[in-house]
Amino acid sequence: MTATARRGRRPGAPDTKAAILAVARAQFAAQGFGRTTIRGVAGEAGVDPALVHHYFGTKDDLFVAALELPVDPRGVIGPALAGGLDGAAERLLTAFLSVWDDPDMRASLLVVVRGMLEPEGHRMLREGFLPAVIVPAAAVLGLDDPERRMALVASQVMGLILARYLLEIEPLASMPSADVVAAIAPTIQRYFEAPLP
Amino acid sequence: MTATARRGRRPGAPDTKAAILAVARAQFAAQGFGRTTIRGVAGEAGVDPALVHHYFGTKDDLFVAALELPVDPRGVIGPALAGGLDGAAERLLTAFLSVWDDPDMRASLLVVVRGMLEPEGHRMLREGFLPAVIVPAAAVLGLDDPERRMALVASQVMGLILARYLLEIEPLASMPSADVVAAIAPTIQRYFEAPLP
Repeated sequence: MTATARRGRRPGAPDTKAAILAVARAQFAAQGFGRTTIRGVAGEAGVDPALVHHYFGTKDDLFVAALELPVDPRGVIGPALAGGLDGAAERLLTAFLSVWDDPDMRASLLVVVRGMLEPEGHRMLREGFLPAVIVPAAAVLGLDDPERRMALVASQVMGLILARYLLEIEPLASMPSADVVAAIAPTIQRYFEAPLP
Repeated sequence: MTATARRGRRPGAPDTKAAILAVARAQFAAQGFGRTTIRGVAGEAGVDPALVHHYFGTKDDLFVAALELPVDPRGVIGPALAGGLDGAAERLLTAFLSVWDDPDMRASLLVVVRGMLEPEGHRMLREGFLPAVIVPAAAVLGLDDPERRMALVASQVMGLILARYLLEIEPLASMPSADVVAAIAPTIQRYFEAPLP
């Protein structure tokens, strides 16, 4: 249901849905993920909280919908990590690159990334993306200190996005994705499992 | 001389110097590093090329001046890498963090980084920073395939800047710098010397 709703294909009340989403996006950006509530979004949108749940699911789901990504990142990260820690980084990076190397996906994702790099978008990324999307998706790995490990993973993955896709720095921009995976997966795997300082 | 000139403390003709720098910045951003020449900058600024050399030094120097960084990155990277490959990543990251963790430096650097993340700034970063600043500074290490290795290094370092300083993602933003070095230096060291795919 959530996926259908997010893509806006659900019949009926498109204006109400869009209004709820606009309020949610503004509140997540202004207040951060932690202080935004389904009830608060519903209140400002002038609807019943049950309708927000009905359209969008949980607060995490509402947050992902507000990001307006072309794909639910949890649907990419979750399956990649489901096979366990062994080889997790390689599977994660392969799945990640298969999304980013798709030209249509990339165009949509770049719009989102540019928005998150604007000052108004920082809070969405800082307070929402990691705690609401990345860390829960990584829970299947049972890492110790998952916040710190996933912040390190995020630093390498965000740098890769920036260098390869946004700035198109060569030779990284033109490297075959298998070579990118071979070069960078050991970094991610080390952040998953090496002893931390 | 270059350092003095860059800080604008050299007496005489401040308007001419500022005009040259403005032209240089516009040409580097519009044409990229490779196609910008001292002669072309001098022409558009209406001065003799010798005056550009006199004020700013080489084209690399002019490029670094145009970046308006609070510190010459070559002066940070060069000495850190001068001790050879063994421990190079740890020295580089320690030097790098000592600059970024200085609040005044950080404020100035964030202005530059934000500018480079704007579409008009992409070309400066993509075509200038890596080939004109980073790769030459790393030449002392005698790496095979330095462009690819330094692009990988840049991806991790840019991601660290983004996560720790620009977005202030926790717990990375508050980690003691020694812990950041311990966590990330092995990544950089691997990009320096591990076999590439």
